[in-house]
Amino acid sequence: MCERINGGKTTVYTRPLARLIEQFQRLPGIGPKTAQRLALHIIKRPEEEVQALARALLEAKKQVGLCQVCFHLSAEPVCEICRNPQRDRETICVVSDSRDVIALEKTREYRGLYHVLGGVISPMDGIGPEQLTVQPLVRRVSQQQVKEVIIAVNPSVEGETTTLYLGQLLKPFTRVTRIAFGLPVGGDLEYADEVTLARALEGRRELD
Amino acid sequence: MCERINGGKTTVYTRPLARLIEQFQRLPGIGPKTAQRLALHIIKRPEEEVQALARALLEAKKQVGLCQVCFHLSAEPVCEICRNPQRDRETICVVSDSRDVIALEKTREYRGLYHVLGGVISPMDGIGPEQLTVQPLVRRVSQQQVKEVIIAVNPSVEGETTTLYLGQLLKPFTRVTRIAFGLPVGGDLEYADEVTLARALEGRRELD
Repeated sequence: MCERINGGKTTVYTRPLARLIEQFQRLPGIGPKTAQRLALHIIKRPEEEVQALARALLEAKKQVGLCQVCFHLSAEPVCEICRNPQRDRETICVVSDSRDVIALEKTREYRGLYHVLGGVISPMDGIGPEQLTVQPLVRRVSQQQVKEVIIAVNPSVEGETTTLYLGQLLKPFTRVTRIAFGLPVGGDLEYADEVTLARALEGRRELD
Repeated sequence: MCERINGGKTTVYTRPLARLIEQFQRLPGIGPKTAQRLALHIIKRPEEEVQALARALLEAKKQVGLCQVCFHLSAEPVCEICRNPQRDRETICVVSDSRDVIALEKTREYRGLYHVLGGVISPMDGIGPEQLTVQPLVRRVSQQQVKEVIIAVNPSVEGETTTLYLGQLLKPFTRVTRIAFGLPVGGDLEYADEVTLARALEGRRELD
């Protein structure tokens, strides 16, 4: 980071600036040029603005945990979706990640609850059902009044494995469906547009 | 930010997360998708890492000011370049912004001092010599032993105006040169590659 010039003692960035650039570079998708640009921007902003960003970082990290029921990100022990009396409590949509909950919520098509697995089954990476929130899902489905479980994981090999596995596991208790392949195979649920996602929800079919 | 679902009370993001996403979106070049990605990344990192980023932000903002001599970013009253006894004190390179100092330092070709104007003369934007550090530059050049002033501002209309103006002002005291047009006209000094910048320095010519 502190590149040295001609063997002299001068560094390109003054220390605190170099440290900030280094910190920015640790963020995903931020390269050296962007990190420098962000750091120089920060230095030019009023102190209150920089404090607001620092505070938001610390508070988000400190306050946001996982919902005890569905494992979605939440600042409370039970998330806003699980607590909302207007949601349909007899439908659970199973996703691999909190980002997928956010993407589905943006469609404004879905009124049920969620269950965040925390990943997909991937034996190559050592991820089996024990590493995911499969057991709490089975408990929810077997102990509560659940009419339908909609499986909405990415259409990858691991996603297919996960879908089939969960289908076998949950069919004794309830109806199990999966979202339709409205999204391009090999694509990422997080990046699908809202219309495509809404259609995928509509066209869901029984697991056979 | 907190989009509402079907008139219900559920928001897409839990509060502290929404605030962090909002803060990230204020940074230059960060859109809603990137802000979301960064915020979700932050929540998954260990607390120490998030604290390190927050600290780097606050410290950079608090500690980095401008060098009293050359107006480059500095954590000390006088910057490392101005304090370095190995630098050639008889040559001053005039740039519009601290980013340009950083870009020139990376070439490892220049051994003299700098002077950061803080912009270029632009009557349309109400920026004249009084809004820039022109007076301190004239003081430096007239009171100290300066053999050469190299003007290195972007080859834009405003940059040309600034170069010609400074040339008239400083020629009574010293030799005034400008960097060669090794960089593409209309381009931005900050983004030129190091070889091009080094060549531009080498091929500098007397102002006529």
